[in-house]
Amino acid sequence: MRSFKDMAFKTLSSDSQSIEALIKGFANRSENKSFLISNVTENFLAIRPSGNPITAEDLVGMYNNADLVVEVSELVKIHRLEANADWGFAAFTLKEQFSYKGENNNDLSSYSMIFQKRDGAWKISWMQRSSGTTDLSTWN
Amino acid sequence: MRSFKDMAFKTLSSDSQSIEALIKGFANRSENKSFLISNVTENFLAIRPSGNPITAEDLVGMYNNADLVVEVSELVKIHRLEANADWGFAAFTLKEQFSYKGENNNDLSSYSMIFQKRDGAWKISWMQRSSGTTDLSTWN
Repeated sequence: MRSFKDMAFKTLSSDSQSIEALIKGFANRSENKSFLISNVTENFLAIRPSGNPITAEDLVGMYNNADLVVEVSELVKIHRLEANADWGFAAFTLKEQFSYKGENNNDLSSYSMIFQKRDGAWKISWMQRSSGTTDLSTWN
Repeated sequence: MRSFKDMAFKTLSSDSQSIEALIKGFANRSENKSFLISNVTENFLAIRPSGNPITAEDLVGMYNNADLVVEVSELVKIHRLEANADWGFAAFTLKEQFSYKGENNNDLSSYSMIFQKRDGAWKISWMQRSSGTTDLSTWN
């Protein structure tokens, strides 16, 4: 008979892969700016560096703004990823190079992201983004 | 017989109270600057507004720095609090008035905080703090 511990480990492994796919889907903004829309829970919010919240719809609206040109948006490093059967958590840093109204930004931003299962599928349920000033060496 | 749903609700309610006590204990820094030390998990980290991580020990070191005078540190509002049997999550805003080397700060900072149970007791397992520029009206 398979022990409870074995089952939990099995769950953890495939769940971690699903969560990692969500992080990469979000990170890869240059390919799919609307990724968040179908991959967040009904009550998702993101906390902006300012401390103010923003909905997935409004974030995607920003990504689609004609004044914003995304040059690079990619996952640099996942610092932590934890999951059990129905919740998950990750912390990671993205490299985000973009210009807004012609002004260039070259950000390393660190995120905390929370995941919950809805009808068996992992969704992003919460997110907080730091300012773009992460010094990657501080994460070692 | 008590249904599973009733049991889950009962757990949620007392767990939420424990989590709220952790938030208030952390917020009330003018009373106990070392609160984090005994109330975080062994792998706790906080993400600073910059995107850089800091340990509980180093945060408490900052709070105890003679150059830092905490005038007000209080919970303004809990925007969200969710918990099940062994994990929890909250988002809240603190009012933090302090002077550092004589320079005054008057911050409204928004936090995401994650909680996990260790041997039956709730601990803070992760935290991210925004910059001090939260506009509270954006949370309504």
